[in-house]
Amino acid sequence: MEIRRLALLIEYDGAAFHGFQEQGNIRTVQKVLTDALTELTGESDLEVYSSSRTDQGVHARGLVCHVDTACPVPVERLPMALNSHLPDDLALIKAVECQPDFHARHDATGKIYTYRYYLASARPVVWRNLAAHVFGGLDIAAMRRAIPYLTGTHDFHAFMDSNNNPRRSTIRTLEQLELQIDGQMLTLVVRGNGFLYHMVRILAGTLLYVGQGRLQPEDLPGILIARDRRKAGKTMPPQGLCLEQVFYPTNLFNGG
Amino acid sequence: MEIRRLALLIEYDGAAFHGFQEQGNIRTVQKVLTDALTELTGESDLEVYSSSRTDQGVHARGLVCHVDTACPVPVERLPMALNSHLPDDLALIKAVECQPDFHARHDATGKIYTYRYYLASARPVVWRNLAAHVFGGLDIAAMRRAIPYLTGTHDFHAFMDSNNNPRRSTIRTLEQLELQIDGQMLTLVVRGNGFLYHMVRILAGTLLYVGQGRLQPEDLPGILIARDRRKAGKTMPPQGLCLEQVFYPTNLFNGG
Repeated sequence: MEIRRLALLIEYDGAAFHGFQEQGNIRTVQKVLTDALTELTGESDLEVYSSSRTDQGVHARGLVCHVDTACPVPVERLPMALNSHLPDDLALIKAVECQPDFHARHDATGKIYTYRYYLASARPVVWRNLAAHVFGGLDIAAMRRAIPYLTGTHDFHAFMDSNNNPRRSTIRTLEQLELQIDGQMLTLVVRGNGFLYHMVRILAGTLLYVGQGRLQPEDLPGILIARDRRKAGKTMPPQGLCLEQVFYPTNLFNGG
Repeated sequence: MEIRRLALLIEYDGAAFHGFQEQGNIRTVQKVLTDALTELTGESDLEVYSSSRTDQGVHARGLVCHVDTACPVPVERLPMALNSHLPDDLALIKAVECQPDFHARHDATGKIYTYRYYLASARPVVWRNLAAHVFGGLDIAAMRRAIPYLTGTHDFHAFMDSNNNPRRSTIRTLEQLELQIDGQMLTLVVRGNGFLYHMVRILAGTLLYVGQGRLQPEDLPGILIARDRRKAGKTMPPQGLCLEQVFYPTNLFNGG
């Protein structure tokens, strides 16, 4: 059988996964996905490469992987075939055949993440695994005034937790930051060309502090220049974060 | 201690409950709520009366109950106090003291329900417990053209499953039906003065059939007049349904 490289568009609910990346026998997205592909294809040496390694509790509605396989199932039928081998908190949305040198991580040119805040005095119930609880109101207008300071190309060293290679560049470009309010749900949408470790969760925590009056919008240029993690806001909890979409030079999935 | 009647605004995720109404030792909302109130107050004879008896799998973001209790905790602090006795899929949002003759069910003048359809070829993952999967597209414009036929006062006998007292009136008034689309999520919002058994789920199933071209908008007057359950659409699954709000002659919770 001919080996093809497939690009896979994946959705998962991060609540019951220990993150994306395989770690022995722990229940990670990579392990459950690879096991299902192995069951379906009978190929025991499959290697799944991902655009992103989300942390424990973080969700994805449009993560992209690639894998080389001789699986003869037509790509249009692969979601149906594979999803019967996957648990209900993980699904293949779409599969396409791609160039043999396509790489899900190296070729990615940008990503959209969302971060959801649930604004209420009582803890969230229906949305408890999809949003972070914020007790009390936020000054959303102030949060929106802070956004222009973060948009564009900056050194985001202050917005990174200390897990990264210190020699790597910490300069990134954020093309879009937007706050959408719908009832008690406030959603931060961030589109950028790349993200540092915990960067979206720290951006969300910093905007939270602005909304609470603990930081002023005008403080943000100084935080960026100081490159000091301690001056930015807290790292928000993982369940509010969702990887929505990954971009490539070509429109791989025709809109997913 | 003086006995007071309290009105309770309740939120729950219906996925792991066998509906609202107590049935022996089965995990129902009424049982878990009553047990928590008993733990908090030490009163063993508490009776919780609800505005609504939702079915297994149905959610509520604004169900109203009343209970008579001598609990000395101030109502403002009751959510915090009670929620530590409740599991994470059930919470008290707000409590207020009400008139001693207030009745959560008898005094209700209207309710808002939502029904969520998830429109996609692959099954929903992140939203799997909060929406019904609809494979393939829907003609939302046709669904919207059907709405005026359902709005207003009608005999909704065709939109009721056969669990009701046959002698009870099946005339109800729907003040508002609205379809909101946000990405892949289509939400039906229904406000009415009262609802028959499974009525919202059958309304949702009938509008689905219109969206799929299996019924035409112009078929609806005939379905209402025929009073024949078999002419309406299917009863949609419970997880898409959520009781959002209950109305009373006075604004009990000041907007909740």
